[in-house]
Amino acid sequence: MTSLSQVAKQAGVSASTVSRYFRGQLSIKTETAEKIRQAADLLGYTTPSLTDTRHLSAQYPGYGIPHTSASGQPISSTGIDQSAVALIVPELTNPFYASLCEAITSQTQAGDHVLEVMVSGRQATTEAKLVDHVIESGRFGGLIYAGMHRTNRALNHLATTPIRLVLLDEDVTIPTQSHPNIVTVDNYSGAYQAASYLISLGHRRIAHIAGPTMLSTTTERLRGYRAALENADIPYDPKLVFSGPYTEEYGASVLTYLIQMDERPTAVFAGSDIVAIGLISVCKQYGISIPQDLSVVGCDGIRMGRWLRPSLTTLTQPIDDMAIAALNLLFQEDGDDARNAIDRNNADSGRGNNDIRLPLTLTIRESAVAPR
Amino acid sequence: MTSLSQVAKQAGVSASTVSRYFRGQLSIKTETAEKIRQAADLLGYTTPSLTDTRHLSAQYPGYGIPHTSASGQPISSTGIDQSAVALIVPELTNPFYASLCEAITSQTQAGDHVLEVMVSGRQATTEAKLVDHVIESGRFGGLIYAGMHRTNRALNHLATTPIRLVLLDEDVTIPTQSHPNIVTVDNYSGAYQAASYLISLGHRRIAHIAGPTMLSTTTERLRGYRAALENADIPYDPKLVFSGPYTEEYGASVLTYLIQMDERPTAVFAGSDIVAIGLISVCKQYGISIPQDLSVVGCDGIRMGRWLRPSLTTLTQPIDDMAIAALNLLFQEDGDDARNAIDRNNADSGRGNNDIRLPLTLTIRESAVAPR
Repeated sequence: MTSLSQVAKQAGVSASTVSRYFRGQLSIKTETAEKIRQAADLLGYTTPSLTDTRHLSAQYPGYGIPHTSASGQPISSTGIDQSAVALIVPELTNPFYASLCEAITSQTQAGDHVLEVMVSGRQATTEAKLVDHVIESGRFGGLIYAGMHRTNRALNHLATTPIRLVLLDEDVTIPTQSHPNIVTVDNYSGAYQAASYLISLGHRRIAHIAGPTMLSTTTERLRGYRAALENADIPYDPKLVFSGPYTEEYGASVLTYLIQMDERPTAVFAGSDIVAIGLISVCKQYGISIPQDLSVVGCDGIRMGRWLRPSLTTLTQPIDDMAIAALNLLFQEDGDDARNAIDRNNADSGRGNNDIRLPLTLTIRESAVAPR
Repeated sequence: MTSLSQVAKQAGVSASTVSRYFRGQLSIKTETAEKIRQAADLLGYTTPSLTDTRHLSAQYPGYGIPHTSASGQPISSTGIDQSAVALIVPELTNPFYASLCEAITSQTQAGDHVLEVMVSGRQATTEAKLVDHVIESGRFGGLIYAGMHRTNRALNHLATTPIRLVLLDEDVTIPTQSHPNIVTVDNYSGAYQAASYLISLGHRRIAHIAGPTMLSTTTERLRGYRAALENADIPYDPKLVFSGPYTEEYGASVLTYLIQMDERPTAVFAGSDIVAIGLISVCKQYGISIPQDLSVVGCDGIRMGRWLRPSLTTLTQPIDDMAIAALNLLFQEDGDDARNAIDRNNADSGRGNNDIRLPLTLTIRESAVAPR
């Protein structure tokens, strides 16, 4: 059987490059990829990973045995297609998730895998149903899961299958897995940067529009916002903190509370760009000019933020790095050098090698200035 | 075996309602759905559709036989999961496609099916690869295909499988299928409305930023634009027509040509909202006020258009109706009443019962006014 190092020798590249290529990890030039592909074809090399579930069904007794669907009909799961990776996201109309799907798609395709995206509509029951579907299909080698809830009972069942799991963006408690693979961003540090930037401009009344309270991302950002205020000796005022869904409608609704305050805030840090855009959209009708009367900093770095006037100052999510890190964790072999990915991405190691926390970047544009 | 009409009787609803429920066609109240589900559970009714591929493998000899993947490994396709529907889209960062995915997802889930979205990145080779993947998986009962090219050789192979196909938004020539199921919108009539609206406001120099030239949607909109001009005795000026990708960048780039014209246009009809947004975003730096100096009408009706200031006048795509129509065609039985769906949606019947063309709606907001 042809080994990976034989392919590397034939292609004139290192074994680790060949390994990265076959695991779908990018930053490989097109011509290098072509050399590897030709060498592999010539030598008849076939990839042992992602997860050759036919070898694993003995090891994981629950896998490969026909499951029973909700309707009571047995579903055969012998037809394993190793090339499929599932991605479950809460929604697509928030451009943050749409960009994440596209980034993971393009990273996946480079490695000859196919990404299949499923949308939960932010519903816990659908999140569980989709994970069950991924398991019952018996055709996915990996699952990247971006949830909107702290738990999902169906994720417990993954432990009895060879499907590899990576949690993305939001932490989820899984009783059967003490150290799941997880890729998050450093929301604490990001929020600290955003609030500190507004403070540095001269603001002292800074509102925070947080996300849904049950999310860890929300909690972390609130903690970063509070720490920045404390560092500047600005007392924390809970009346300035709002918590709600990531929608334009919610952002627009918050403005009505801000303008009724005796001491109006001069700046807002929103936990989502679309919330910031919703808030900005209704300012004009109340005679509020952005950024002169109200500075706004968003979070996510969606593409549209560049095209708004004023353009949106925001905390930019490292979308491409998140995609690469998630796939690195998904395709890594045991004892593999996940550290390389972490070092490359300049990321914090979090709880260990399977816990990658990437930094947010403050992107300074036009929507935040010094207060009048 | 329990029949559909027995379930209907038990649930106290009509057989056609039960049929619609099991085919995932919506506009069924939650309580009605619950009644049907309970009746079906009680009577032990199981759905014969979407496409029970186990019965069909005899009928379609190419199906159910192990396929060979690109890597030369046989892929078993006996593990059919009837509940999966595939959707291939060009991209997700254009909010039009993201909304379409969400609409089809929510319509699909109502019928207990799971929609799996795959993104082609607008590449013809990836479009073909994804269709091959859907076929090789042997697990999909249906494929909804939104392409960005006039052809896709892999779609020819579908004819030898029981996978049902619905083309969405863009027409594709498939030699093996003379009358494929297709759901499009009436771009001719839509463009005619948009241009006529600008003419009715008093504009006579109206530019058109069209989409990529190879698309039928582009051709149809250009035809509608020209017909509206002709109807108003305004000579057609090819210098006012631009053709390019659906990106903000392209819209921004077009403005540089408009402002250099001896006789500048006073209005623009863009074939995509994100193109319109890109154009609007650079106007300020050239001292052009929207809508006073330049009226802009977009196309698609993306959510963000409502939140821009000025808000975007646009041709709104019937996203929900497109989702419903596509699933109606996918789940319809032979000789089924696809006409009902067409009548409900007030749509043109196009070439026949399997060709549904839905109307675009002009949504009048703030970005287009009378010329100075």
